[in-house]
Amino acid sequence: MVATGSAGVGAFDRMWDELVPVGRDDRTGGYHRFAWTREDHTLREWFAGEAAARGLELVEDRAGNQWAWWGDPDAAPGGGIVVGSHLDSVPDGGAFDGPLGVVSAFAAIDLLRAKGVRPARPVAVVNFGDEEGARFGVACAGSRIVTGALPADRALGLVDADGVSLAEALGRAGRPTSIGPDPETLRRIGAFVELHVEQGRALADLDPATSAVAVGTGIWPHGRWRIELPGEANHAGTTGLADRDDALLTAAEVIMETRRVAVEHGCVATIGRLHVHPNGINAVPAHVTAHLDARGTESEAVRAAVAAIGATVERVGGRLHPESWTDATGFDTSLLDRVAGAVGDAVPRLDTVPRLDTVPRLDTGAGHDAGILAQAGIPTAMLFVRNPTGVSHAPAEHAELDDCHAGVRALTRVVGDLTRDGAAP
Amino acid sequence: MVATGSAGVGAFDRMWDELVPVGRDDRTGGYHRFAWTREDHTLREWFAGEAAARGLELVEDRAGNQWAWWGDPDAAPGGGIVVGSHLDSVPDGGAFDGPLGVVSAFAAIDLLRAKGVRPARPVAVVNFGDEEGARFGVACAGSRIVTGALPADRALGLVDADGVSLAEALGRAGRPTSIGPDPETLRRIGAFVELHVEQGRALADLDPATSAVAVGTGIWPHGRWRIELPGEANHAGTTGLADRDDALLTAAEVIMETRRVAVEHGCVATIGRLHVHPNGINAVPAHVTAHLDARGTESEAVRAAVAAIGATVERVGGRLHPESWTDATGFDTSLLDRVAGAVGDAVPRLDTVPRLDTVPRLDTGAGHDAGILAQAGIPTAMLFVRNPTGVSHAPAEHAELDDCHAGVRALTRVVGDLTRDGAAP
Repeated sequence: MVATGSAGVGAFDRMWDELVPVGRDDRTGGYHRFAWTREDHTLREWFAGEAAARGLELVEDRAGNQWAWWGDPDAAPGGGIVVGSHLDSVPDGGAFDGPLGVVSAFAAIDLLRAKGVRPARPVAVVNFGDEEGARFGVACAGSRIVTGALPADRALGLVDADGVSLAEALGRAGRPTSIGPDPETLRRIGAFVELHVEQGRALADLDPATSAVAVGTGIWPHGRWRIELPGEANHAGTTGLADRDDALLTAAEVIMETRRVAVEHGCVATIGRLHVHPNGINAVPAHVTAHLDARGTESEAVRAAVAAIGATVERVGGRLHPESWTDATGFDTSLLDRVAGAVGDAVPRLDTVPRLDTVPRLDTGAGHDAGILAQAGIPTAMLFVRNPTGVSHAPAEHAELDDCHAGVRALTRVVGDLTRDGAAP
Repeated sequence: MVATGSAGVGAFDRMWDELVPVGRDDRTGGYHRFAWTREDHTLREWFAGEAAARGLELVEDRAGNQWAWWGDPDAAPGGGIVVGSHLDSVPDGGAFDGPLGVVSAFAAIDLLRAKGVRPARPVAVVNFGDEEGARFGVACAGSRIVTGALPADRALGLVDADGVSLAEALGRAGRPTSIGPDPETLRRIGAFVELHVEQGRALADLDPATSAVAVGTGIWPHGRWRIELPGEANHAGTTGLADRDDALLTAAEVIMETRRVAVEHGCVATIGRLHVHPNGINAVPAHVTAHLDARGTESEAVRAAVAAIGATVERVGGRLHPESWTDATGFDTSLLDRVAGAVGDAVPRLDTVPRLDTVPRLDTGAGHDAGILAQAGIPTAMLFVRNPTGVSHAPAEHAELDDCHAGVRALTRVVGDLTRDGAAP
């Protein structure tokens, strides 16, 4: 996917090529990298190897997140500068969502070292565990556990599709189940900057010369709901249409209403997961469970849309159960300005345009560990790398090699700037 | 479910009680009895035990269907009289669909013997394997294989939800895989009468005194189709509504159109099974596979409805693939008259009304092994026992004990009549 040999971005290309085959489905080109599986173990070993090769100190926190420290993590009173992301994927996901941030972080350290930089504050690369929640259903589980946003007992009781709990999965992976909030780890984070592939086409539609990289300003309010729609089990050949209570027909109405309401309220709402019971070819569907994901720039619009969907669900005899809700998360404004200022020097041809105005700023509908840390009061920012397809969570997710390298240079500038002196950013 | 102690119906109650726990889900009250599983094995052992207890000769044909013969199966040139049904179930199915016919058949032999009847033609009880097709997807697999309607190589290649082929399942069950058409078995069947619980409320809505049992006259034309609906994989949080190609939204349109078209054409059409890919909460559905089942009294109406559904599927970019089609099956008319005449004496208070007109006659939207045998040219008829709920393929499927006993008496009359002399019916 990424060719070798581009100069000045450390070991980016070599690292990228090493990750390409891990958990890849050669049929679809998509990735299956789920928490505490063999693929996850391979990725964690790879991370430990990269840390060791650079002489970084590897620390695992109480949720199993990996931290590779350059410098004494307790040296700076205000904490160090942390960069990185995650290595897991959604089912049949893309190559970039997560790994791009981790690989770019190691490459940024390489670039700083190549320039002889001696940072005044410690720097860490982080690999957050189970960011996608693909196996146990809760996104950003690693960052939620260490910040206390996800209580340990609830986390340990989460079960995967095979009925295996997180506690059992940890046991099988030879991991302790004494997971939980980790204040010591959090204290070490002076600021967190997560580089990530863009999950839309905002940058692709801007001036190509100045839009390889954007500063992420915040995360939309978003939530998840479970919809239970009852029907009546019956025989599909012998039950008259008028005598049926077909749960899938009800679900179809809810699905169409969900789209209509989302358009009306100017937000996005998706029914992406749905199970039919008993799911027999000659059985009238007796029950449907559907999952609703809704997000938007304005909390009120999202909540109004979900309320309208809930009214439809109740009208057809179903129930809408809230599963999670996260309000809008704005990243740290002074950190954002400093990051944007640093990035200004890194993107090509920036000398022709004023700095802050030309670095695009984007908010995003996707959740990230950066959002979880921001909610825990840690100064946080993000960088987005242009995605020409706009697709993410699918094999077509992409970033051009030149743009990946631009991302590494931008991240290097940011880390260099934030570690110029020992003061908190 | 059925109390003990009702006189004059042989061992019906004892046999019924023995079957009640096999494969029952105590949470739902539904049954899970699938081909070549442990439950199926238990049911087959039970059948063999009932045959042995009566001194009947147990024969398994080349598809593994079980036949328990009373008298030399090759004694009558025109073949013997076969009664029975199947013992397997749909997922979370009812107790009566299948077992009622097998248990009633054994009980009918008991009643004939108790009256000292010595049939002039051999009689058999049959247990057809895998009638529901719940595991491998093809209904009436046992009767289709022996009649040649389902080629052996296609049957052996069928796979269950775990990817296990029928060939592998037979191997694991210690069964030969040399399945195939079995003309010798078919030659022994002079006539087949299948007693079955009604799968609708036609009898429940008639005069209670004369409608415990009906004669089944035929099976509606019916077919199955697979619908493939493509979309585009994407992130549910970051992809604008206008940029989406959501396969589940497309499916919702097809589901609603299916109902509308079925009403318009006066037939039944059901999408009972549906799978979403990747089925992730935060993933725009990239693909949906749905299964359509359509039936009705008139072939032309069913075909017109499916054509209209197919046009909708194509308009939204999908494909409709035919999987199976069975034309209307009318049972043997002279056999039907003889069965109806015999039943006339068996239902309560029939002396007050003329015989043939008062035994209800029903056709059915459900497929049965009786339909497969009829298509193979074997004289075939059915008896239906009243179902007060009208529900089938679900735990609420039911028949009152008195009606079950009326069914046994009706079947006994029919067998007694058909074996009065040695001539073909």
